[in-house]
Amino acid sequence: MSKKNAFYAQSGGVTAVINASACGVIEAVREHHDRIGNVYAGLNGIVGALREELIDVSQESADNITALRHTPSGAFGSCRYKLKSLEENRAEYERLIEVFKAHDIGYFLYNGGGDSADTCLKVSQLSEKMGYPIQAIHIPKTVDNDLPLTDNCPGFGSVAKYIAVSTREASLDVASMCATSTKVFVFEVMGRHAGWIAAASALAQDQQGDAPHIILFPEVAFDKEKFLAKVQQTVEEKGHCVVVASEGTQYADGTFLADSGTTDAFGHKQLGGVAPTLVNMIKQELGLKYHWALADYLQRSARHIASATDVAQAYAVGRAAVEMAVAGKSGVMPIIVRDSGPEYSWSVGEAPLIEVANREKMMPRDYISEDGFGVTQAALDYLLPLIQGEDYPPYKNGVPQYARLKKVLVEKKLKENFGM
Amino acid sequence: MSKKNAFYAQSGGVTAVINASACGVIEAVREHHDRIGNVYAGLNGIVGALREELIDVSQESADNITALRHTPSGAFGSCRYKLKSLEENRAEYERLIEVFKAHDIGYFLYNGGGDSADTCLKVSQLSEKMGYPIQAIHIPKTVDNDLPLTDNCPGFGSVAKYIAVSTREASLDVASMCATSTKVFVFEVMGRHAGWIAAASALAQDQQGDAPHIILFPEVAFDKEKFLAKVQQTVEEKGHCVVVASEGTQYADGTFLADSGTTDAFGHKQLGGVAPTLVNMIKQELGLKYHWALADYLQRSARHIASATDVAQAYAVGRAAVEMAVAGKSGVMPIIVRDSGPEYSWSVGEAPLIEVANREKMMPRDYISEDGFGVTQAALDYLLPLIQGEDYPPYKNGVPQYARLKKVLVEKKLKENFGM
Repeated sequence: MSKKNAFYAQSGGVTAVINASACGVIEAVREHHDRIGNVYAGLNGIVGALREELIDVSQESADNITALRHTPSGAFGSCRYKLKSLEENRAEYERLIEVFKAHDIGYFLYNGGGDSADTCLKVSQLSEKMGYPIQAIHIPKTVDNDLPLTDNCPGFGSVAKYIAVSTREASLDVASMCATSTKVFVFEVMGRHAGWIAAASALAQDQQGDAPHIILFPEVAFDKEKFLAKVQQTVEEKGHCVVVASEGTQYADGTFLADSGTTDAFGHKQLGGVAPTLVNMIKQELGLKYHWALADYLQRSARHIASATDVAQAYAVGRAAVEMAVAGKSGVMPIIVRDSGPEYSWSVGEAPLIEVANREKMMPRDYISEDGFGVTQAALDYLLPLIQGEDYPPYKNGVPQYARLKKVLVEKKLKENFGM
Repeated sequence: MSKKNAFYAQSGGVTAVINASACGVIEAVREHHDRIGNVYAGLNGIVGALREELIDVSQESADNITALRHTPSGAFGSCRYKLKSLEENRAEYERLIEVFKAHDIGYFLYNGGGDSADTCLKVSQLSEKMGYPIQAIHIPKTVDNDLPLTDNCPGFGSVAKYIAVSTREASLDVASMCATSTKVFVFEVMGRHAGWIAAASALAQDQQGDAPHIILFPEVAFDKEKFLAKVQQTVEEKGHCVVVASEGTQYADGTFLADSGTTDAFGHKQLGGVAPTLVNMIKQELGLKYHWALADYLQRSARHIASATDVAQAYAVGRAAVEMAVAGKSGVMPIIVRDSGPEYSWSVGEAPLIEVANREKMMPRDYISEDGFGVTQAALDYLLPLIQGEDYPPYKNGVPQYARLKKVLVEKKLKENFGM
């Protein structure tokens, strides 16, 4: 059996642990050096494959490969580049397969979310037809936790932990200031379509009535009167109120809060203005002093407070993808399976990509409390295991030491530059 | 010698380590139980003294007192309440002394910034005149690092570490996305008058040219053209640009960026809108895709990533205040002294409050690079030791376990309620 090389690429918004999956891939390939040759990583994701910009992973030091496990964001570069459908741009897929053929690549390991699962599936299908079969395995990654079939997505546990920790800490701050100053704190978190990240803020609660007092989900239509009444009531009862708002919070008609009111003044439609919209309401209608925070990239890059469970799972799906490749599989994705039993334990399972692509997992309605402002015990039971354990990176000079890759590119073999 | 009690209060914006100072106070008082009686803490700071709402610290468990060392924010409650001048409201100072007299309090330990140093001094002076001398000791605390005489302020080192870590992490994120998506990341940090916190982001740099690429200080007049040119140039050279902006960034005429442009749409003058103002400029003038974050309370409550040096110093000044009290001193403040020598070491010194009150320590001009967008080696040499070491809190259920005090109030002895 001839040894084929493996191509690995990172796709879409990065996470605190996507490099742990890369580490799992690379270490597993090394163990299977009798079956798989080198790992080539796409410089800036799939764009690197289209441009024939392939990072020769064998040029990286062993220390750097080990350090990938504790390095956040996409060390090889990621991209937001969705391949069109086969009908619309078959040439793009054919180019991919041509590049893979030129570099003797037999394994396509694609680390991303829903869109990349779809791409992965198409590469698997088309390569068969083109007579150069490539084993395409998708490795799950998303902070949004919206992939189907897997119990949870690697990347989510760490953002969940960051949000829970930050909510607990900021809540102590407003609680200590509220007698004479700030009464309301609004914390805007990621989540355009699904409220998983906002829900994780509830893990900050230790006792009934603890902050956050209000959580806003994209799944629940925003009702201004009801929201303001709840803020007012909470301030009266507790002296302060902590609100965690999903960036995708929307009115019943589907208008995003971030697209309405004050954010229009920014002159853009990019989400990320729920918190200023909310505090403006609170000031105008209730006259309460407020503070607000917007974590943005901080939340998904916060490797310093990553969940040890998440790191272990991200690493495991990376390894599992290689095992699946070695076992001759294609068009599949390793998934996290929650084992049954009273204590949390997990294992890695397998899902066919045809069932993964183009499906989004929303929060079940029974995870959201009846009034729409909190989560149920079922949600807490689901979320709690995912943030367990700390996995601190090494520090030097007071800051975490993260991998710095050399990113040596493989010599190009194709003339065509594909116009990118 | 009769044993007097001690009064302790937290003042102004809280920090990740102000409770470490409280822990130092309480533990040192216990060791001097032959000289000092109980510790009464003001519920919500000095307001608690005026209202005669005194927390009986002896009612708290030993575990909770120990846990204060790793608990952020003001566990006894803080307040934004500045006593007027003696001429304007002498009655307020007299009320304080009356309350102290009623509870046999001989030591006033006030934990705060510049304003509270001033209050502390006045209490010391007036109590002498009123024939009930109180030893007033100020314990330094501020994230802004703007107190004079002390080498640095407890509270600053931890926010500095948080900003350095977060900047490094978010910079990796934008670097991995920039090929096809976000080109500019703007991170707004605290600092109205002094740029110490923004300066600390430079500690994220490991090699020349690393992020942050632009730092905006309140001390340097904002020049829109120069700023946009630097953003453009950085994106061209590095593919992306990371900007760290002080909330107090202002134009040459003293107008805050946060008070101009888009933030007017929020309908308030509260600072905290530099980042949206900047990204709006970047979008309109350069057309670059951006993300932005506003850390707000997250940065000063982030005990999970506190600087071990800062924690040790905060604890030490708490203890030192008690030692000064026992030594018969008044109108003084323990300070951090940077010892000379090639290796960083520090000790606790003493400063007279009359030299502390109403003076603000700005960043020296030679700490800011010539172009005004970065820091010099002198600044790095000053800042680096302050973020050294990690001092992780204990975790339970995936989140840090922080002290929850009972806050049992001492029975009131005075009829008058002082109208508060």
